This record gives sequence, structure tokens and C-alpha cells, in this order.
Amino acid sequence: MKPTHIEHIGIAVLSLEESIPYYEKVLGLECYAIEEVADQKVRTAFFRVGDTKIELLESTDPDGPIGKFIEKKGPGFHHIAFAMEQVGEALKHAADQGVRLIDEVPRPGAEGLQIGFLHPKSTQGVLTEFCGNE
Amino acid sequence: MKPTHIEHIGIAVLSLEESIPYYEKVLGLECYAIEEVADQKVRTAFFRVGDTKIELLESTDPDGPIGKFIEKKGPGFHHIAFAMEQVGEALKHAADQGVRLIDEVPRPGAEGLQIGFLHPKSTQGVLTEFCGNE
Repeated sequence: MKPTHIEHIGIAVLSLEESIPYYEKVLGLECYAIEEVADQKVRTAFFRVGDTKIELLESTDPDGPIGKFIEKKGPGFHHIAFAMEQVGEALKHAADQGVRLIDEVPRPGAEGLQIGFLHPKSTQGVLTEFCGNE
Repeated sequence: MKPTHIEHIGIAVLSLEESIPYYEKVLGLECYAIEEVADQKVRTAFFRVGDTKIELLESTDPDGPIGKFIEKKGPGFHHIAFAMEQVGEALKHAADQGVRLIDEVPRPGAEGLQIGFLHPKSTQGVLTEFCGNE
């Protein structure tokens, strides 16, 4: 049930257009994809760093989850996603350990992956995602 | 000037004793070191995940940086550290790009590494560290 690696770090930003140049020019990373996830009301930009990705999240609607997050906390770290070989089993294992889940079963996420979120009340304030191919 | 990988993710916690079991039992990670960094007024616990580490940060003094962070924002994500081959050069490059620095030159950090922080006002709210062997 151990993650193979950190699949990505999700970072809420006010504007992809203003944030991408920082990641490219200051950190030297390359934005390899921009994807809109309509049902999450976000536009995302991806960068690879070692075996992890950085996923920038720009809200497309103030009432969406990232819009509300930024209104409450400002831009910054949003979530950490662990790569799990079996997302459903990992969620079930977490629930068995007393962790409150946002997603009881995996659902489709960005980049064609299956994903599921743990509730930050059960993870010391760190919004945590499991993701993988199944 | 590109980072080779994310060296670690720093997470502020109220208590290592309460947080370590979550990382071990729910996520299946192993705490391989606990280290006190007296001048930063923190106790740290480290876990490896792929080529990255998770560094839990517990304050040993309410007036220390983690104590103040938790008082203001609660426990959760604190910083991201990028592994840079030459920390001093990477800091200088960031400053040349207009980034405000917390550390103008590298200083010794945990695990024998040289480290330097960028100011979150210049990094869209993401406290960012560069670290490496030189």
C-alpha cells in the first residue's frame, strides 16, 4: 500500500499566465501541458521535476474548489498526490485506519488517472490525493 | 539551473508523535530519521517517497518560525525544496530574475545540505527552498 513516488504537488495560483514564467525562467522547468478540467472549474499547467510533477491550478469560476480555496487562504500549496498502484485498495486501507475520505471510490482525474482524495481533517491539514492507473 | 528533483516537501505538524503514525500506517512510509535543528526551533522527521522526502516539522518554541506559522495558518504544507547542483548560483539566478530572497547566500541546513530560501511574496505564496551539496 506504499506509494511508489509523489505523483504531483498541486499549487493554487491566481493566473497561469503570471505563474508559468516563474516556473520556467526562475526554476528552469518546462510547462509540457495545459489542460482544462471543466467539472473541477480549473485550468491546470504541468511541469516535470525528477519523478514528480508540479500541477498549477487556476480557477475558472470563483465558486469552484480552487476559487474558494484562494478566497479563503490565498494562492499557494493546495494538495499532494501519491502514486498508488491500486487507488481503490489504498482508499479502503486508509478508511480502515480511521481516515475520513472525500472519495470513497476512485474517480477519473486529470491525465487519464484514477484518483481519490482523503479529507484534510484526517491528514493534519494536508489535502491528500491517491492516484494511479487502477 | 534546473532542479534535478524535489528534494523534500516540508509539512508543519502540531506533534511528530501524532503525525508519524499517519505517515507510517496509512501511507506505508518509514520514518528513517528524527533530527532536532535547535537554531530553527524545530524537530524534524523524514520519510522517503521515490526520489523525494517528506519532512515533518514540529515546533519546539511558539516563537520559532514553525510555531508562528502554525499559530497563523494551522498545520499543513510549509515549503517545497528543489535539489539544485549549485545552490549559490541558483539563488543568484533567481535574484537576477527579480525574485526576492530570504537567503542571499547558502547556509547550512538539515542533513548536511547547503540551503537558501526564496521569499513567498516572489513565488506566488509558495515558500521555496533550494538545497544541495554546494
